[in-house]
Amino acid sequence: MKTRPIIAVTCGEPAGIGPEISIRAAWELREQVRSVLVGDAALLSMIAGDIDPAIRLTALSTMALEHGGLPDLGPDRIAVIDCPLAEPAVPGRLDPRNGHAVLQTLDVAIEGAMRRRFDAIVTAPLQKSTINDAGVPFTGHTEYLAEKTGTPQVVMMLAGGEPLLRVALATTHLPLKDVSAAITFDSLMTTIEIVHADLRRKFGLAQPRILVTGLNPHAGEGGYLGREEIDVITPVLQSAQAAGIAVSGPYPADTLFQPKYLQDADCVLAMYHDQGLPVLKHASFGRGVNITLGLPIIRTSVDHGTALDLAAAGIGQADHGSMVVAIQVAAQMARAAAAP
Amino acid sequence: MKTRPIIAVTCGEPAGIGPEISIRAAWELREQVRSVLVGDAALLSMIAGDIDPAIRLTALSTMALEHGGLPDLGPDRIAVIDCPLAEPAVPGRLDPRNGHAVLQTLDVAIEGAMRRRFDAIVTAPLQKSTINDAGVPFTGHTEYLAEKTGTPQVVMMLAGGEPLLRVALATTHLPLKDVSAAITFDSLMTTIEIVHADLRRKFGLAQPRILVTGLNPHAGEGGYLGREEIDVITPVLQSAQAAGIAVSGPYPADTLFQPKYLQDADCVLAMYHDQGLPVLKHASFGRGVNITLGLPIIRTSVDHGTALDLAAAGIGQADHGSMVVAIQVAAQMARAAAAP
Repeated sequence: MKTRPIIAVTCGEPAGIGPEISIRAAWELREQVRSVLVGDAALLSMIAGDIDPAIRLTALSTMALEHGGLPDLGPDRIAVIDCPLAEPAVPGRLDPRNGHAVLQTLDVAIEGAMRRRFDAIVTAPLQKSTINDAGVPFTGHTEYLAEKTGTPQVVMMLAGGEPLLRVALATTHLPLKDVSAAITFDSLMTTIEIVHADLRRKFGLAQPRILVTGLNPHAGEGGYLGREEIDVITPVLQSAQAAGIAVSGPYPADTLFQPKYLQDADCVLAMYHDQGLPVLKHASFGRGVNITLGLPIIRTSVDHGTALDLAAAGIGQADHGSMVVAIQVAAQMARAAAAP
Repeated sequence: MKTRPIIAVTCGEPAGIGPEISIRAAWELREQVRSVLVGDAALLSMIAGDIDPAIRLTALSTMALEHGGLPDLGPDRIAVIDCPLAEPAVPGRLDPRNGHAVLQTLDVAIEGAMRRRFDAIVTAPLQKSTINDAGVPFTGHTEYLAEKTGTPQVVMMLAGGEPLLRVALATTHLPLKDVSAAITFDSLMTTIEIVHADLRRKFGLAQPRILVTGLNPHAGEGGYLGREEIDVITPVLQSAQAAGIAVSGPYPADTLFQPKYLQDADCVLAMYHDQGLPVLKHASFGRGVNITLGLPIIRTSVDHGTALDLAAAGIGQADHGSMVVAIQVAAQMARAAAAP
């Protein structure tokens, strides 16, 4: 492992706050992390100059990267891999003509990570509609990463707060009424296996302890408030325990998120989006990190959106705290994954 | 308003921690609150002696209360209204023969509050099975209170944490898959009206601000993740706004619970149990207070259970912090309700 992990940072929607927070975070962390910004070099240079003339960027074309590899510029300069926009970015104004360039930043980062040129990738927020309106079907970063890396199932995890809380989700972006049917023996078992494997491999936890919520209030209260705990969740947990995974539950979600329980856990697995994320985001004050488990590469992202309104208001409005944490977590994971 | 509000405290399941935490909290707050413990006088005297011989209780029979009214014993002595158990209570061991006595404590408290002999009631946890096994159908404190006071719909609210967070629920103890169907225009409208009216009447907030979550992740994301926000929640909010209620939403539940949004709210209305309560209990470290809105009387309770295991382990194991807060909140509400 290099002393400074190499992290590709895709700068996201060019009309949003992504470019600014990526530059600020990469510069702030330059002693600890060798960030490689992936985006339009001209736009990034302009924004960097507006933030602080002391920030120094060096642009590389993807072609140069192909032929010469990634030069080590040292801790006083940030490398940029240039993915030129079709049209100049106007802060706050979406332009579908730039959709392909945004997608290219992801392709460059994914390919570089798969080839182990990057130790991890961190993604700034993008606007799905920019890409869809460019004629490319696109449902989200996570799905795109899964497809491009040939991963059949991934798991979304958010981490943040002090003490650190990690929450993985058994289901993500589904209408509430469809959640129950989506939790099957196989899907939940695979989710637990992915969480377990990645907490070992990417977080360096030898025997990670996973606490699992029930689906229903009070974890179904013995069947009085729903049967999914009895019919699906408990059998899965028994199988996972038999396979040597330190998993327990199902616990009532409202009592589980208290220090006396959390102190014995490395991760909570919640059954659905709004059961797990409100408490995580409350505890992390909006500085949570989104981590995609199950991929063959390490990927984190911020847990907020493109904030077009803040971008339109000019440089200096956005808070880059979540991006700093996203890069730090990716670097920690890269170090853990590289440890013998 | 008396300087010390009169609060009836029902001591709950006699084999649980209810009697102990009720005595401890009443004694701790005796300068500010005139607590009236409702339970078996012999049991309470014995436990009080074990806690601290300085605690002084005076028992009144329900018959004496009927004829002589409630005497003011001053701040150095706690009144007990005797509801004798059928059998001696054994800590940790449930006995259905005592079910009727437990129910009697509720009847005494409710009747006294309806007659304005008490300014509020606070309930320690009881064990539903003790009452059911005594042959009385009983689904919970809240339902019993609603029935006995002739209230067609009540709303469960929990409060706690610093800064104070209040979370009301549009639905409570339902299997997750039944939640969507339970949220109708009429039920949600009535819930909002109750929350609004009680925040005014019992909390003294002239124009309470209520933030409402969506049902689905990201509040349905414009219909992509469910239509309940478009079909039900938004029309209800528009009607409520037209009626002069300061309500807004629907907001994504995962972003709503952040200080920047909460600072402008007096209450969050969540659509279901595990959307609202994990964050409330995390924020309040298990010291939340359960408040029943919509009743003609003021009622609060602790947000934990009977803890039979702790009771069996002996005096001094239980934390009475939540009961202290429950009585304090009831007293605040009584003062607000009495204010001109």
